[in-house]
Amino acid sequence: MRVQLTVAYDGTNYHGWQLQPNGITIESVLNQALFDLLGETITVTGASRTDAGVHSLGNLAVFDTNTRIPAEKLSYALNQRLPEDVVVQESKEVPQDFHPRRCASRKTYEYRILNRKFPDPTRRRNTYFYHYGLDVQKMKEAAQYLVGEHDFKSFCSIHTSAETTVRTIYGIEVKQEGDLILIRVTGSGFLYHMVRIIAGTLILAGNGQIAPEHVQEILKKKDRSAAGPTAPALGLTMIGIEMEDVF
Amino acid sequence: MRVQLTVAYDGTNYHGWQLQPNGITIESVLNQALFDLLGETITVTGASRTDAGVHSLGNLAVFDTNTRIPAEKLSYALNQRLPEDVVVQESKEVPQDFHPRRCASRKTYEYRILNRKFPDPTRRRNTYFYHYGLDVQKMKEAAQYLVGEHDFKSFCSIHTSAETTVRTIYGIEVKQEGDLILIRVTGSGFLYHMVRIIAGTLILAGNGQIAPEHVQEILKKKDRSAAGPTAPALGLTMIGIEMEDVF
Repeated sequence: MRVQLTVAYDGTNYHGWQLQPNGITIESVLNQALFDLLGETITVTGASRTDAGVHSLGNLAVFDTNTRIPAEKLSYALNQRLPEDVVVQESKEVPQDFHPRRCASRKTYEYRILNRKFPDPTRRRNTYFYHYGLDVQKMKEAAQYLVGEHDFKSFCSIHTSAETTVRTIYGIEVKQEGDLILIRVTGSGFLYHMVRIIAGTLILAGNGQIAPEHVQEILKKKDRSAAGPTAPALGLTMIGIEMEDVF
Repeated sequence: MRVQLTVAYDGTNYHGWQLQPNGITIESVLNQALFDLLGETITVTGASRTDAGVHSLGNLAVFDTNTRIPAEKLSYALNQRLPEDVVVQESKEVPQDFHPRRCASRKTYEYRILNRKFPDPTRRRNTYFYHYGLDVQKMKEAAQYLVGEHDFKSFCSIHTSAETTVRTIYGIEVKQEGDLILIRVTGSGFLYHMVRIIAGTLILAGNGQIAPEHVQEILKKKDRSAAGPTAPALGLTMIGIEMEDVF
């Protein structure tokens, strides 16, 4: 059967999702736990190959197995074999032809900025500490120019292998919660570093270095150097993925 | 001059606040950073000697120094010398006769319970994961019996050296925020393990093992074994201390 895992992790101690010749990754610890549990050599396929340091509440991993353990019991058994910073939230059987990166989906990421005078050590692992004042209203205005279908070439790392840089953003919510500024982006898919470059650009709008409407110019230029810096990985969390019209 | 530091820390990697013959403590890293910065052998006095694994957003540390560096600049200079899990939030001069444990004060602690099916690895360091269902309304009811001046002997570790076990709780707020249940307690001072035993007892009220009004009986018994278990340290954060009528 084909099984889908919903996987949460604290990315601090991992070299990202994808298998690496050197360094431990989320994929490698999942493959290892599956081998320990099932005695099968399994390579999971991830929906979102998050970078080193990026966190997740709801990434998806899919694999095939011959086990007779019911799919929904696998979460409990895997969690006993996984390190404490990787936790399966759900396991379930999916159709044999389901592939998590070839299906239409809505992915949601959240970028978390801690905007205060001094760092808060209890939140240092999953927020980006930013000391200067930010105008959240300006960040909201700037974000709205990104909603819709656009060529996001300016918001894509030059180290990309994507065939097209056109993507659709369904919505961006910029929200202040105390000293946290949360940027929640939902889209059809994201280019390499895209959410982190969006966060870095919204920070420029928030601190006054660019006007909110300048985001339109950045999109038009189709040039990575026109956008803001890539915000640090630790502020980013993959929230979840909704698959459309599959089950 | 006498200086007061407001100190935030992630207690995960520390053997508590107080100097220990073996093991690194918050006090020891503060003393070391002060020595590095000022060249003076300084022993800070803490307002709240938190246990191993307990976190803080606003603990206070007081010390005397001959430095000419203005008190309010010390925070920046110390943070450059402190590890990333201990951060001074404010430094200021206080009266020469000020002692952080001999003044009337209101201390606030928060106990954070993560109540969901599986652990969330991104919040594993500062929440107590509790899997079974909790009735927050019952926890609120139970909490109200603790407000006021009481003999909290039942809510005090037997390993205490306190002269009296009478304390005043000014307020307890029990609040649900998504999958988090937050217990925020403000009091004149707390006995050894008192907030963690309160949390452990409110959990018993929340899961139905005791009726909310049974908290009255627990208080009356003046016996540690009458109350609930001591909830784990990692869920506890010292939020802050207000000194009364001092400055």
